[in-house]
Amino acid sequence: MADGTNDSNPPEDQVTDLEAGIERDILLALGEEDAGRVGDLVQGLHSADTADLLEHLSADDRERVVEILRPDFNPDILSELDETVRDHVVECLGLQDVAAAVQEMDSDDALEFVEELDADEQQQVLDAIPLGDRALIEEGLSYPKDSAGRLMQREVVTIPTFWTVGQSIDFLRESADRETSAGEDATKNALPEQFYDLFVVDPSHKPVGTVPLSRVLRTSRSAAMTDIMETDMKVLPVSMDQEDVAFVFRQRDLVSAPVVDESGRLVGAITIDDVVDVIHEEHEEDIMRLGGVQEDDLYDATVATTQARFSWLLVNLATAILASVVIGLFDATLEQMVALAVLMPIVASMGGNAGTQTLTVAVRALAMKELTTTNAARVIGKEALVGVFNGILFAGLIGAVAWFWFGSSALGVVIGLAMVVNMFVAGLAGTTIPLALYRMGIDPAVASSVFLTTVTDVVGFFTFLGLAALFLF
Amino acid sequence: MADGTNDSNPPEDQVTDLEAGIERDILLALGEEDAGRVGDLVQGLHSADTADLLEHLSADDRERVVEILRPDFNPDILSELDETVRDHVVECLGLQDVAAAVQEMDSDDALEFVEELDADEQQQVLDAIPLGDRALIEEGLSYPKDSAGRLMQREVVTIPTFWTVGQSIDFLRESADRETSAGEDATKNALPEQFYDLFVVDPSHKPVGTVPLSRVLRTSRSAAMTDIMETDMKVLPVSMDQEDVAFVFRQRDLVSAPVVDESGRLVGAITIDDVVDVIHEEHEEDIMRLGGVQEDDLYDATVATTQARFSWLLVNLATAILASVVIGLFDATLEQMVALAVLMPIVASMGGNAGTQTLTVAVRALAMKELTTTNAARVIGKEALVGVFNGILFAGLIGAVAWFWFGSSALGVVIGLAMVVNMFVAGLAGTTIPLALYRMGIDPAVASSVFLTTVTDVVGFFTFLGLAALFLF
Repeated sequence: MADGTNDSNPPEDQVTDLEAGIERDILLALGEEDAGRVGDLVQGLHSADTADLLEHLSADDRERVVEILRPDFNPDILSELDETVRDHVVECLGLQDVAAAVQEMDSDDALEFVEELDADEQQQVLDAIPLGDRALIEEGLSYPKDSAGRLMQREVVTIPTFWTVGQSIDFLRESADRETSAGEDATKNALPEQFYDLFVVDPSHKPVGTVPLSRVLRTSRSAAMTDIMETDMKVLPVSMDQEDVAFVFRQRDLVSAPVVDESGRLVGAITIDDVVDVIHEEHEEDIMRLGGVQEDDLYDATVATTQARFSWLLVNLATAILASVVIGLFDATLEQMVALAVLMPIVASMGGNAGTQTLTVAVRALAMKELTTTNAARVIGKEALVGVFNGILFAGLIGAVAWFWFGSSALGVVIGLAMVVNMFVAGLAGTTIPLALYRMGIDPAVASSVFLTTVTDVVGFFTFLGLAALFLF
Repeated sequence: MADGTNDSNPPEDQVTDLEAGIERDILLALGEEDAGRVGDLVQGLHSADTADLLEHLSADDRERVVEILRPDFNPDILSELDETVRDHVVECLGLQDVAAAVQEMDSDDALEFVEELDADEQQQVLDAIPLGDRALIEEGLSYPKDSAGRLMQREVVTIPTFWTVGQSIDFLRESADRETSAGEDATKNALPEQFYDLFVVDPSHKPVGTVPLSRVLRTSRSAAMTDIMETDMKVLPVSMDQEDVAFVFRQRDLVSAPVVDESGRLVGAITIDDVVDVIHEEHEEDIMRLGGVQEDDLYDATVATTQARFSWLLVNLATAILASVVIGLFDATLEQMVALAVLMPIVASMGGNAGTQTLTVAVRALAMKELTTTNAARVIGKEALVGVFNGILFAGLIGAVAWFWFGSSALGVVIGLAMVVNMFVAGLAGTTIPLALYRMGIDPAVASSVFLTTVTDVVGFFTFLGLAALFLF
């Protein structure tokens, strides 16, 4: 009955092992050009696992697998694919088959898929879809990108304020029956595939309360819905940014929430599965931007990846040259004492690393709304102080190393002083740079690290070589 | 009825604005020592917002707010607090009040709270809790840290295979009635506070299917539960790592899943709200580790933060000294041409940045199970090629800059060659280092970047100065 994971004594990493095993088998079958076996193996997979498989395959193998799946292609696979791979699969399938797949999707999945197509592909797919489904998707596209309106599904279960629990349950059963008997055409007032809350609405269709299904099921038929509904609910405006939507869901442990238009009327609902995807997207964005990558390009082609990474590296080249100009100011000093050239990267590197530690904590705290106007000054002060403390510790260490290495106690003092200054500046810059970008409405994850390393390189080289020029000769 | 967010034309960033406004009012009332007003304002907040407030306050203000809340302290606040702040609040509340709060929590929240206390605090809290609740928590503590057993709640709704939809609904209503009439003592067989699926179990209590509540509600009373259950479900073993649990939930868009012991018997269920917290934790771990911070220390004291960051900086000092040793090998060359000292950080810095881009994508892909044995070789090859391509582009740029700056075309050629070599090595190291660590069972986010910068610094300085020594004199 249950699937394979129900075995006793399951191995530790079974999720991956199981799938890796099937992937190996599929690769083998592909190698032997055994289309029948490939088809059998892939049909047994969940749509999410099939999507993973297509992502892991080379472009050629992917085309062959799509060909094999074409007669019975599961539309859910398209929703689960990474962007680059999805473009490729869409190309393999052709617009006719893609349009057919879109019609089979839930309204939120269809919208999510269509919004990411190129403008002309989008138009061609929409043209191939019947009017009813098309209108829903076009309405969805009218909401701003990354807004609650784009995330929500239009199918929601609404209950008038005067109904009882019994009437609500009867309504659900009747709707389900009507769907079954009317077949495909009844999609207009269809129940959502899955739902977790009923929304109680007043006569003007404004939500006045939510009732979790578990509460409907544990309450007697005669109870009024208004007596068991939660009124302390979060109502999301269609224009709310998806990042704020995710914040509300996490903060309140929600599984679904009503979405309202400008006049406060209920127009849809967002469910937790879509929010989990948003959380992952936002995380990915943060981590990629901190690493200097515009977006996850694992499946992109080599040339596209080269181009995408070029601009960030170009900015970095400019800041590296700026640091070199600072070093160039002291060429006379460097000529007198080559030890300075040997030691100078240490000061810059330690400042860069200490600053990155601070920056990581600050960027994350801003994204989590944990770093606010209330505590910003306190956090800046603390980070500057941490910089000074660690600066003093490492000044001692590197001062001793420099002294023994080059036999000059004065050199040890100079590098120690430069270390304290640079690590203090790193703590200060590591908090103030992301805070300033955030206030200016710029995502601090994008640009913070380039500004930070510019500051720590310039200050590191300048204080070390400057102090050396002043005190060593 | 609905709360303030139901207004028409809501402002863009209302979630934060609203809370920031209340926080300001509370700070003002604290400043005026108006305990009554502070109490009124805080009582109006959701527990998650109260937790945020406590996190943002200074230690003194936090103590005062906890005192004001003490007579009517909401236990949910404890579950929502950051670790450092929670320790402080626990200290302010005292063990007696903490133990009382734990008894009011759901089994999974209570376990999550108790498991993070110090060993002796844990024992004292457990001693202050009645035997029934204590046994549940102690059983939970017997599962490995970060396992499904620690995440699950013990309260689940199980349905025998021979029941109909009607019988299941009647059972839920009766259980709810029994709870209400029996009061607090009936917790043993209580229904969970919130649930989303019913689990159909065979006579040996093994799960054979799950039924989403929305399906129960849309089906007629006479239908057999076994006819409407999903049998293609994911059953999670108690020992499964929470990261794998999160992966399964996301992959399958689950809201709840059954957890079984070694013999396959149902022992609990994991719900999506706990998984969302895990996703956040795992992400935070990744981002912090990539930034060289052991864990989010925003609320830690200055000295604790200094200590925590010291060890990472110490490792970095060692690698920076190693790079300096490499530079020291070429002191004679540097003495002959100070331009080399001016330019050498550029090659190292560009390698470090290109490597970090690759590393970020690889670490993220490993965490998402997107980088597997199937595509590892292809990804390594691609990244090395991207490195060479961008290396050639930047070789041209920096070569021209060096030539014009120092008037030596040979110097331009040398720095260009060094750039290509270092960026090729950066692409190679940026993928192979995290892959190697992953194979060895080490979290690639922890140590990858220190190995990477060691490689790019050493190779950068060595090739640039080495080629200069060979060809420029």
